[in-house]
Amino acid sequence: MPSHLDRIRIVLCAPSHPGNIGAVARAMRTMGLSRLVLVDPRRFPDAEADAMASGATAVLDSAEVVATLDAALAGAVLAIGFSARPRDFAGAVLSVRAAAAEALHYAAAGDVALVFGTEMSGLSNAELARCQVVATIASNPEFGSLNLAAAVQVAAYELYVASHGDRVWRAPAFEPATQDEIAQLFAHGERTLVALNFLRPAQPKRLLPRLRRLFARARLEKEEVNILRGILARVEERLRHAERIGD
Amino acid sequence: MPSHLDRIRIVLCAPSHPGNIGAVARAMRTMGLSRLVLVDPRRFPDAEADAMASGATAVLDSAEVVATLDAALAGAVLAIGFSARPRDFAGAVLSVRAAAAEALHYAAAGDVALVFGTEMSGLSNAELARCQVVATIASNPEFGSLNLAAAVQVAAYELYVASHGDRVWRAPAFEPATQDEIAQLFAHGERTLVALNFLRPAQPKRLLPRLRRLFARARLEKEEVNILRGILARVEERLRHAERIGD
Repeated sequence: MPSHLDRIRIVLCAPSHPGNIGAVARAMRTMGLSRLVLVDPRRFPDAEADAMASGATAVLDSAEVVATLDAALAGAVLAIGFSARPRDFAGAVLSVRAAAAEALHYAAAGDVALVFGTEMSGLSNAELARCQVVATIASNPEFGSLNLAAAVQVAAYELYVASHGDRVWRAPAFEPATQDEIAQLFAHGERTLVALNFLRPAQPKRLLPRLRRLFARARLEKEEVNILRGILARVEERLRHAERIGD
Repeated sequence: MPSHLDRIRIVLCAPSHPGNIGAVARAMRTMGLSRLVLVDPRRFPDAEADAMASGATAVLDSAEVVATLDAALAGAVLAIGFSARPRDFAGAVLSVRAAAAEALHYAAAGDVALVFGTEMSGLSNAELARCQVVATIASNPEFGSLNLAAAVQVAAYELYVASHGDRVWRAPAFEPATQDEIAQLFAHGERTLVALNFLRPAQPKRLLPRLRRLFARARLEKEEVNILRGILARVEERLRHAERIGD
């Protein structure tokens, strides 16, 4: 399945801090987005933006600077505005997760714009009225003020997960123990616990089931079984040695 | 349901940039987290941290500074380490979304620590070995380098959504039109289109169904029905006027 992330543009309306523009570029690149449009930025290009982009300067180099939001939205089939605060808005208000799914759905048909307002006050009502959908990031009702780049990071993350799924890396594979190896380990452990007089065969109680439960949860690896059996063998050896001395 | 977010601490291992510590504090507060633990920070407290915290300085004021990761994890029943790269790790590797659910599950029983490594290289293997779970944020395989505060923002956002649900704000309620008001609007529209000779009653074709579909999607409000009927009435009035002149 093609991901269509390349059809999604991030539009920043009148960003005032070049550092934020750079941090937005970095956030975009971490999630596979590359198209940045700046509407009337106060300072751009700027060394501070480059510094904060930290390896994502290609996003800044290809950023488009336009004078109006209309120009930034040209050619887009869907514009999604981000707003943390309840506003007069006639369209759908979606969570950022639902908005990401909607964005990808429309991206199959054409370009989609995610629109973010200026740092201090967010999108104006006039800017919001140009959007068909409003997205909102769930947050602390007492302090919902996400940094601009942080908001873009969350949105881009949701787009990436919606597009590529929530994949995780796998640790280098260890060889799992087989069921018979585990059964032998428990038989060995039981013998040793009996020899230690910790377990009385006549009154086994709940000890062995509890140990089985613990090791089942841990999903033993072959090498771990070998280590544990080595420990058990050493305990048995010392017990025999003690018996000989005691004789 | 109590949220238990107050039992979750964010642990930063050897953060080198005070600006990042401040940005982390802000990210935490936007998602209702307040407990920050700093392991051997290079500079803290620091004016740059305060500036980046932007209203979340209370999180910085109550931040704990400790010398070792062990001290940072004291009392926690679960430690979740964040790592973008595949690593030698014997425990579970979860997506940040699954890890957030796991964190809340354990927070019902006690404190939970989310552990983040130093900016340049992330968590060391020794640090990771102190964690029972590793969380990873899905990202661009070619550039997975999220800024430290951006990673904390995504994690804190997932915790907030897992804890409070994905609530969105509602725009001020507009009064929806009733079905009979909409039926009258369509009857009015049909009369007008016939009068305009745009619609021929003998060959209605697909016009009216298409218009119904459009307005159904828009979910008409009462006031919008009034506006549309006003426009239709004006068109009818002008047609009658033109007929009178034509007579």
